[in-house]
Amino acid sequence: MQVKELSAERGPLLLVHGGAGPLRADLTRDELLRGRVAGLRQALAAGWRLLAAGGSALDAAQAAVEVLEDHPLYNAGRGSVLNALGRVEMDASLMCGRTRKAGALCGARRLRNPIRAARRLLEEGRVFSEACAIEAWLSAQGETLKPPAWFITEDRVAQLEAARGTGRALLDHEGELDRRSRRAARLGLGGGDDAGTVGAVARDLAGDLAAGTSSGGMTNKLPGRIGDSPVIGAGTYADNQSLALSATGVGEAFIRTVFAHEAEARVRLAGQGLAEACGAALERVASLGGEGGCVALGRREGVLAFNSQGMYRAWADPAAGRWGLAIFQEEVLEGGRLQELTAD
Amino acid sequence: MQVKELSAERGPLLLVHGGAGPLRADLTRDELLRGRVAGLRQALAAGWRLLAAGGSALDAAQAAVEVLEDHPLYNAGRGSVLNALGRVEMDASLMCGRTRKAGALCGARRLRNPIRAARRLLEEGRVFSEACAIEAWLSAQGETLKPPAWFITEDRVAQLEAARGTGRALLDHEGELDRRSRRAARLGLGGGDDAGTVGAVARDLAGDLAAGTSSGGMTNKLPGRIGDSPVIGAGTYADNQSLALSATGVGEAFIRTVFAHEAEARVRLAGQGLAEACGAALERVASLGGEGGCVALGRREGVLAFNSQGMYRAWADPAAGRWGLAIFQEEVLEGGRLQELTAD
Repeated sequence: MQVKELSAERGPLLLVHGGAGPLRADLTRDELLRGRVAGLRQALAAGWRLLAAGGSALDAAQAAVEVLEDHPLYNAGRGSVLNALGRVEMDASLMCGRTRKAGALCGARRLRNPIRAARRLLEEGRVFSEACAIEAWLSAQGETLKPPAWFITEDRVAQLEAARGTGRALLDHEGELDRRSRRAARLGLGGGDDAGTVGAVARDLAGDLAAGTSSGGMTNKLPGRIGDSPVIGAGTYADNQSLALSATGVGEAFIRTVFAHEAEARVRLAGQGLAEACGAALERVASLGGEGGCVALGRREGVLAFNSQGMYRAWADPAAGRWGLAIFQEEVLEGGRLQELTAD
Repeated sequence: MQVKELSAERGPLLLVHGGAGPLRADLTRDELLRGRVAGLRQALAAGWRLLAAGGSALDAAQAAVEVLEDHPLYNAGRGSVLNALGRVEMDASLMCGRTRKAGALCGARRLRNPIRAARRLLEEGRVFSEACAIEAWLSAQGETLKPPAWFITEDRVAQLEAARGTGRALLDHEGELDRRSRRAARLGLGGGDDAGTVGAVARDLAGDLAAGTSSGGMTNKLPGRIGDSPVIGAGTYADNQSLALSATGVGEAFIRTVFAHEAEARVRLAGQGLAEACGAALERVASLGGEGGCVALGRREGVLAFNSQGMYRAWADPAAGRWGLAIFQEEVLEGGRLQELTAD
């Protein structure tokens, strides 16, 4: 397990993830890596721009997630992985730590930004909904929906074909591929190298916390399957009293261990530090055979933790005046001065 | 808040609920009350029969829930409340405390017993799914589905009409009715007097725990709305280490507070007693303006707790050799010797 801690008693903080799993360096095509690194940086910059200007944690978390939903190389929004029927079904949730208001939806097929719909549900007090009804509701209000085919990228089609060869649902960033999948991967067709769930946690100038998560789920998943991303308490949780957290990994194990709330309860009820709490919650996931990771913000610190081979992750560290980004076990893959992050 | 405790160090235990809410005695028609009391007793007997014969907690919890799903006067299975479009959409979940395996589904329209489908998901390791896909899957395996109209009872149609008059979604057992609804209630048309979510928790001879919950949600709810019943950690949770719990009430507040796992974490992480843990979790629900209740079993005791005007509830108390049943604040409305419960 790798756990990175940032310390910052007050002021804005932002952590972003782009999925965890057993990624393999040799399967990561150069252009794919470059594209994903650029996406993570854009997401971090979008959220940080808002926070630095005094914006709310809720807006910042949402903005960072929207960038990755729009990015075709991440498994959320356009570019989501395909289920066993070759369709996109997306889950998302958003929670405000100040009010503990939440919005979550599952099974979206026509929403460009599921996290934006989650925000609408949060504002309306609707909390949790199946997405088809939400799509109809938003459409009736004049919002433009995307046709289901708009979400499907060539990479994901190839990836589904590779997954069908293995006859099972692939995890985010799955690396243990059979020969057919390896060939697909060599051909640059993606194979199991699917970037994962995306999420962000933010703390604003007022000290409010927020967390958001969005996901296309698992390649070749059974139709209707709902992961942990839209489950408040599993994939997402936020409470100013304790933490904001967004998770990624084998959704089933995160649901069964109520991952996000497990970490939250450890901070609030057991007095554990954030890193200790996230680590212990990940150990419970591992005890069920699951793996993955999370980004979390507490009242005084930030944590990026994963027990998988890697996790796409980025952070804004105002105490050090720097931002950073990493994928595998390295401490920093790319980074720079924080004031330059939002310059361009 | 009312909290009842049963003590039993070992051996089988069973608690059943049929929903909580602001019920009003003067709105409870006699035949309705009698029917519901009979249903609760049947559910308790069905589960207890299995447990007394050495059956598993999982089978017993499922059996008790199935009886109430089949009972047209409870808000689960046939007799579920209608959403704003006049349709039935049902949620259910089941969890095994020994393995922490779980199965949950939302939005069922054609499953006579949603809890049985939850069991299938649990067995298959599928954990959480939208129900339409599950209905198609089960149908392909030769299972008979019910047409959506089969679930709709006259009472629920009248209740929806009353709710439409108030222009809002009614809670389970809602009692604060406007004039039109009062009239509907006087006419014996149900009004807001809808029996709620159903659930059961069981402990078997081996000491294993299980919990199950099933619900039609709220009258006049928006289409697609998902309550806490299918959310592992909110409406249902089971872990042999700590407790099995099934909740009922204002689903949104139970999701936002991750109710079931909040109580579970208080037992496991904070060393609280079961009654204290359930009470504290209900207080968190109340702090968000929500109300409801739960039945819970720990390693040494059982708890029935609610902060609403009442909760349909029944218990098998082997230490006292008696079973009991209550709805409002009374200690016991009906009861008898435990050995006679399963005699007929």
